[in-house]
Amino acid sequence: MMGHSISDGFGNKELDAASLPSSQGQRENPHSIYKVGFPPRRNFFREFKDTLKETLFADDPLHPYKDQTRSRKLILGLQFIFPILEWGRDYNFSKLKGDIIAGLTIASLCIPQDIGYAKLANMDPQYGLYSSFVPPLVYAVMGSSRDMAIGPVAVVSLLLGTLLQNEFDPVTEKEEYIRLAFTATFFCGITQAALGFFRLGFLIEFLSHAAIVGFMGGAAITIALQQLKGFLGIKNFTKNSDIISVMKSVWGSASHGWNWQTILIGSTFLAFLLCAKYIGKKKRRLFWVPAIAPLISVVLSTFFVYITHAEKHGVQIVKHIEKGINTSSVNKIYLTGSYATKGFRIGLVAGMVALTEAIAIGRTFAAAKDYQLDGNKEMVALGTMNVIGSMTSCYVATGSFSRSAVNSMTGCQTAVSNMVMSAVVLLTLELITPLFKYTPNAILASIIISAVVGLIDYEAAFLIWKVDRLDFVACMGAFLGVIFVSVEIGLLIAVSISLAKILLQVTRPRTALLGNLPRTSIYRNIEQYPEATKVPGVLIVRVDSAIYFTNSNYVKERILRWLRDEEEQLEAKQLPRIDFLIVDMSPVTDIDTSGVHAFEDLHKSLQKRSVQLVLANPGPIVIDKLHLAKFTELIGHDMIFLTVGAAVMTCVPKAREDV
Amino acid sequence: MMGHSISDGFGNKELDAASLPSSQGQRENPHSIYKVGFPPRRNFFREFKDTLKETLFADDPLHPYKDQTRSRKLILGLQFIFPILEWGRDYNFSKLKGDIIAGLTIASLCIPQDIGYAKLANMDPQYGLYSSFVPPLVYAVMGSSRDMAIGPVAVVSLLLGTLLQNEFDPVTEKEEYIRLAFTATFFCGITQAALGFFRLGFLIEFLSHAAIVGFMGGAAITIALQQLKGFLGIKNFTKNSDIISVMKSVWGSASHGWNWQTILIGSTFLAFLLCAKYIGKKKRRLFWVPAIAPLISVVLSTFFVYITHAEKHGVQIVKHIEKGINTSSVNKIYLTGSYATKGFRIGLVAGMVALTEAIAIGRTFAAAKDYQLDGNKEMVALGTMNVIGSMTSCYVATGSFSRSAVNSMTGCQTAVSNMVMSAVVLLTLELITPLFKYTPNAILASIIISAVVGLIDYEAAFLIWKVDRLDFVACMGAFLGVIFVSVEIGLLIAVSISLAKILLQVTRPRTALLGNLPRTSIYRNIEQYPEATKVPGVLIVRVDSAIYFTNSNYVKERILRWLRDEEEQLEAKQLPRIDFLIVDMSPVTDIDTSGVHAFEDLHKSLQKRSVQLVLANPGPIVIDKLHLAKFTELIGHDMIFLTVGAAVMTCVPKAREDV
Repeated sequence: MMGHSISDGFGNKELDAASLPSSQGQRENPHSIYKVGFPPRRNFFREFKDTLKETLFADDPLHPYKDQTRSRKLILGLQFIFPILEWGRDYNFSKLKGDIIAGLTIASLCIPQDIGYAKLANMDPQYGLYSSFVPPLVYAVMGSSRDMAIGPVAVVSLLLGTLLQNEFDPVTEKEEYIRLAFTATFFCGITQAALGFFRLGFLIEFLSHAAIVGFMGGAAITIALQQLKGFLGIKNFTKNSDIISVMKSVWGSASHGWNWQTILIGSTFLAFLLCAKYIGKKKRRLFWVPAIAPLISVVLSTFFVYITHAEKHGVQIVKHIEKGINTSSVNKIYLTGSYATKGFRIGLVAGMVALTEAIAIGRTFAAAKDYQLDGNKEMVALGTMNVIGSMTSCYVATGSFSRSAVNSMTGCQTAVSNMVMSAVVLLTLELITPLFKYTPNAILASIIISAVVGLIDYEAAFLIWKVDRLDFVACMGAFLGVIFVSVEIGLLIAVSISLAKILLQVTRPRTALLGNLPRTSIYRNIEQYPEATKVPGVLIVRVDSAIYFTNSNYVKERILRWLRDEEEQLEAKQLPRIDFLIVDMSPVTDIDTSGVHAFEDLHKSLQKRSVQLVLANPGPIVIDKLHLAKFTELIGHDMIFLTVGAAVMTCVPKAREDV
Repeated sequence: MMGHSISDGFGNKELDAASLPSSQGQRENPHSIYKVGFPPRRNFFREFKDTLKETLFADDPLHPYKDQTRSRKLILGLQFIFPILEWGRDYNFSKLKGDIIAGLTIASLCIPQDIGYAKLANMDPQYGLYSSFVPPLVYAVMGSSRDMAIGPVAVVSLLLGTLLQNEFDPVTEKEEYIRLAFTATFFCGITQAALGFFRLGFLIEFLSHAAIVGFMGGAAITIALQQLKGFLGIKNFTKNSDIISVMKSVWGSASHGWNWQTILIGSTFLAFLLCAKYIGKKKRRLFWVPAIAPLISVVLSTFFVYITHAEKHGVQIVKHIEKGINTSSVNKIYLTGSYATKGFRIGLVAGMVALTEAIAIGRTFAAAKDYQLDGNKEMVALGTMNVIGSMTSCYVATGSFSRSAVNSMTGCQTAVSNMVMSAVVLLTLELITPLFKYTPNAILASIIISAVVGLIDYEAAFLIWKVDRLDFVACMGAFLGVIFVSVEIGLLIAVSISLAKILLQVTRPRTALLGNLPRTSIYRNIEQYPEATKVPGVLIVRVDSAIYFTNSNYVKERILRWLRDEEEQLEAKQLPRIDFLIVDMSPVTDIDTSGVHAFEDLHKSLQKRSVQLVLANPGPIVIDKLHLAKFTELIGHDMIFLTVGAAVMTCVPKAREDV
């Protein structure tokens, strides 16, 4: 059937070009057999419902419930909220084996990291471990990613630490600081869950990829620089995180503040960790080497310090780490007053960054293993996890890039690996925390440096440079903002640049001049197709965007500018003037009242220049609105064509007659 | 070089067409003779310059300077800043005649309005007159609109009054209140001039037409309600502006607070004014009737009160109005401290609203009389005018809708009419202000009511309802916000809704399924053209927007949803499955790195379903970026076609072979 219609198309095409000058002649117009279609008019509620659906339920979450019995719907609903009910039914021993191995590996990775990250957040080391105990359990029940490893992460810890120390001093006002941290975690969870529940998850997409790459890279470098304190054994270190303050601190204490024993231990193990990382990257079979290297470093160095009593020679050690599992922190959360407001603000920022990271991880692994991930559902899971966490002495947890990668590579099958990790952390808290007493801080610094190096995605930055130079500016803006000012300012720059890009996109849509590809009835951008030729007496402009209040005025003036420039050129060459201005509306998907006004103004201006406005291929919504606003009557129904080709064919002979 | 590969492409393509089934054979395929073109690669600075130019210099302001001598450029430059130098040279007596008549008319209109509007801003009556003296003079020299009448306007006065009284009480803290008003005016001017100078004028276009209609209508009703105080002679009137508080005030004082003499005078003259307005609307020849009616009302009612001593029977009168022209207020502006910050914030808001109104007026009359208006230049003029105004005891002035219309109708030719008006105001201030002593407040209320009635643009609201229901929601949101809460909240709603619309537009672009129009090679939206038929084995989706980080994920998932829905339908009908997914990229004007990632993910997902991804008609920037990101290699160069038709022709036979 289809084949037929295509071949008919050709016949027509050839016939129809008949009305055209010789080279294109003797053929009939295939375009003229169809008129621009009006879509069936939808009523207000239908329209509203459709928009709402596309906005909030774009992933069509109710699809599986279609044509199901009520009890089945209930089960599906429960499975939707608690995915463990779904995958738990097919759980078997071989999966458990994979999960246990993966869980043990990420546990060995997370324990030293947690202690270090807690320091980034200016909190005692046990809080890092607490946050690797409760949140992973909650996520295992509610989350739908199979690969994500939950716990504290470097960037969020740093951000939280920076924001919290603006309010309270973490040393002198320790109690208030901790309380505000839980408050921020609580509101962070509330925000995340609310975003997911109200299906507003798409809001996190307003942070552009380029800005995230820059922000993450900058944060990684900032975090690495912060580790110089532990790495060099400096006692008086700046509180600022910008590179200049840190460098001043480092060089200022070079003569008296550095401790060579610390540097020796730190650099030996950093070299070991980076080697392990390199081996793991080169030989994929040896992926377990970098995964267990941190634990080996901790064990070896702790043992070394213990037997040599290096702590007496100025090597700083962890010293004290609270034994026992999380205590309740329900009463510590500020729910009213100005601290609640501050906590809310900090939680909002930290929560959004945490979400951005978690969703990016979730999507990456879901795409790699080809399973579906519902962003909004994930947000509810992550939010619930943080709310429960805030009540059990945890600070903001989210998905960790490095640990999730290890989790995936070591063969995790389900979120059970998170449960295994959680169990190991529980045992650590209950039994072996005292052993960490002699762990040198330099080792934690080395582990963090080797972990955050992976966040500097220079390959992505290079690709951005190659593909889109303006995106690269955004990327570098965020990067330099984090490094030279602070992590908040970097984030602000990233968000601002992303928003500015969106606004630019809607205020300044592209327009293009079209020309005819010789021997066809195809009209294309003359910049892209140099062989495309302009049609004498006709100017064809394509507007490449919906026409809304944000750009209606620009579009009108830009079209008039095309016309002016063209007329000046023609005049200089003494060629016939423009009689018809064809606006190709194919890409114009929508128009609002401002847009219609702009077209009315355009029509008026053109009339004064005795140029006829012609529209080609308006879409369903556009033709409907132009009709309702009586614009189609204004320019005449016969000035609206199905294709540019049809419009040209009608205009050209007329233009000739005029001459 | 590129050309080579294109012509090579042809040979191959025709071979392809040759392998098509008989019905399609024998004729040359018009689509296949061209390959998708690569635009010439632009370097970074060129690209950046072009973007900058389109964003900030879209109106090509340097165009007239091209190919001019240096001295001519200087003159053009001066004329650009002071348009009076341009139009002043052709000024003649007949123009002067028109300007004098128009100027006298708008002066008669503005004097009573100014006194009333100053009350809306909680200021003494003379400040209204001051603001009609200095700013019009500045505008006459720098502005480029010929029709705009400058002075205080109702909405801005109300907004300023509301915002200022949040900071200081206008009665008990009079001095600080006035100082803050000048501070706000100063920063309002600075903001306006800066926006224009940095060519950021397009920012005001982020307020949608629909939101403005709603906001203006709501503000008009609020202003009219505020006039009930003067109109009914109520002494204890609420400070809130919402309809509920006002109505409570009005009914609460019905038994004792209303003054029948006031009501009698007010309603008589309101009836007179509305009649005059009606006459002016019906017979365009009698346009001068409504223009002079306010002055007549003031003269008659003042005379009436004077001879009857009605002020002793509770009719409230203006009482005192300072004689003499503006004094300097340079020292009254707060330039440092928290009041400066507050003044800046208030000035920013009032300035943006004032700009929106002025630019809308300027554009309307420029379009009607077909002259060009440079929005950015206007902003510099309006800003300078307010800065100078703030130093000479004026508050925020802008273009007034009602007076500009009268100005235009009474035959103004240039901004000289503003100078004439200014001169009349000067004489008024110097000579006759004492005569206003007996003017009853009820008359001022009537004049304001009859003036703001014109701001309620129910026809526009009805058109918005007809054309775009969602726009109407925005309109009503702003309207109800102003009426039921406050003018600031209404403005906030208007801005939020406008921004939400923009964000919605960029996150949820439309997509459409295409079908073939029988007997042509045209592919169109099957919703708009019910006669369009789907091609078996092929799904054709068109994406109607640039693909950026904001929508890349949605676009990918939406395309997969189209595929899933289609496959379910086909399965139900036991029809052959989909082998090719053609994405029509015509409307996709740009893509960023996130967009490329999304396409890579899409390609991966489709491969797993053994569906081949095919692209049709990518634009110049898109093909360039896909090429740089090596995506073209990934899906194969031969899977990218110039038109959907060409893509279908290549896919269909292949699909058949597969069966």
